[in-house]
Amino acid sequence: MWLQKTIVLKSRSRGFHLVTEELLAQIPEIRRIQVGLAHFFIQHTSASLTLNENADPSVRRDLETHLRQLVPDGAAHYVHRLEGPDDMPAHIKASLLGAAVSIPIGGGGLQLGTWQGIYLGEHRDHGGPRSVVATLNGETF
Amino acid sequence: MWLQKTIVLKSRSRGFHLVTEELLAQIPEIRRIQVGLAHFFIQHTSASLTLNENADPSVRRDLETHLRQLVPDGAAHYVHRLEGPDDMPAHIKASLLGAAVSIPIGGGGLQLGTWQGIYLGEHRDHGGPRSVVATLNGETF
Amino acid sequence: MWLQKTIVLKSRSRGFHLVTEELLAQIPEIRRIQVGLAHFFIQHTSASLTLNENADPSVRRDLETHLRQLVPDGAAHYVHRLEGPDDMPAHIKASLLGAAVSIPIGGGGLQLGTWQGIYLGEHRDHGGPRSVVATLNGETF
Repeated sequence: MWLQKTIVLKSRSRGFHLVTEELLAQIPEIRRIQVGLAHFFIQHTSASLTLNENADPSVRRDLETHLRQLVPDGAAHYVHRLEGPDDMPAHIKASLLGAAVSIPIGGGGLQLGTWQGIYLGEHRDHGGPRSVVATLNGETF
Repeated sequence: MWLQKTIVLKSRSRGFHLVTEELLAQIPEIRRIQVGLAHFFIQHTSASLTLNENADPSVRRDLETHLRQLVPDGAAHYVHRLEGPDDMPAHIKASLLGAAVSIPIGGGGLQLGTWQGIYLGEHRDHGGPRSVVATLNGETF
Repeated sequence: MWLQKTIVLKSRSRGFHLVTEELLAQIPEIRRIQVGLAHFFIQHTSASLTLNENADPSVRRDLETHLRQLVPDGAAHYVHRLEGPDDMPAHIKASLLGAAVSIPIGGGGLQLGTWQGIYLGEHRDHGGPRSVVATLNGETF
């Protein structure tokens, strides 16, 4: 079976946010899939999806701090500056982290490891709501 | 339906290049797919595929400039030097950016966001033509 | 056809390791697939899967050296420190490199380029065995 749905994630502050439950709540049909894959795709170039630790919030904070250091706001060499000092670094982070995560489905649920969760990386100061296309494919029970 | 095709991207200069149209021109069969996924996979370890802004060319230029700073040519700590100062950084960038992009198909086309395009990252000074395996999978109309 | 199997990769030292053969040995069923996709997913947040050069071991060494420089152990700004100086950088590398690789299947085998292999990125000093979920999907001969 195939299922495709666009999920709008509510507006969030800059940084990394755990969105596993918010995404799963929109795709209850996953329970029908015995084996398959779930693909989550963010339709933006200044935000990202990535997998990381689902427990201690300090991991999300440190990830943001470190990325701000690797890709600073308003670096002198940016030519693309029209939309503000947070725009070009947001594009760079989007490519370093990626627009999509693809996760195995088994037994009607995501086969995440114990400590894995889905992060939304919001790389703009005021990014607004973000659209994620969820595509599920697999064999039903 | 499944479709797989190897697409040869013409030789390009070092940097990031928008290749969405060049890839789509080779897979007209996508129009038959109502819901599915398109997977583009570059068969090289010194080039990459990533998604980013499809409008202002300065985004592509700044992405290249910033990556050259994060992963400099001929860094003193590289042991792998035989193929020139641009070779080892090309391998590192290939892993940071990734060899594949996977994009939802809906209604016979790629479900990219308004500002998203597919970039070829050419990380060698003289990389030559690059092979991309396109694999489409989905339900037909 | 769909096939899903959890593969346990044996414990390895910190750094990058070529695991293509170890993974393929566990999925002989791939020979039955004419066209499809193979998805390998690591169920951890301090290790990664990536594609890179399968020949010269110095590429794996330089990749590790350079990532240790981009994401140093025990950086002053890390708040998440409880599990040791190698823990937070391991999480950051996991997101930069990614938890999954998706590779086209054609003619009963992985359609990797001549020089491509699958790397396990072990980012902890003592990471232990690592679980990888392999999901194959495609049309059989």
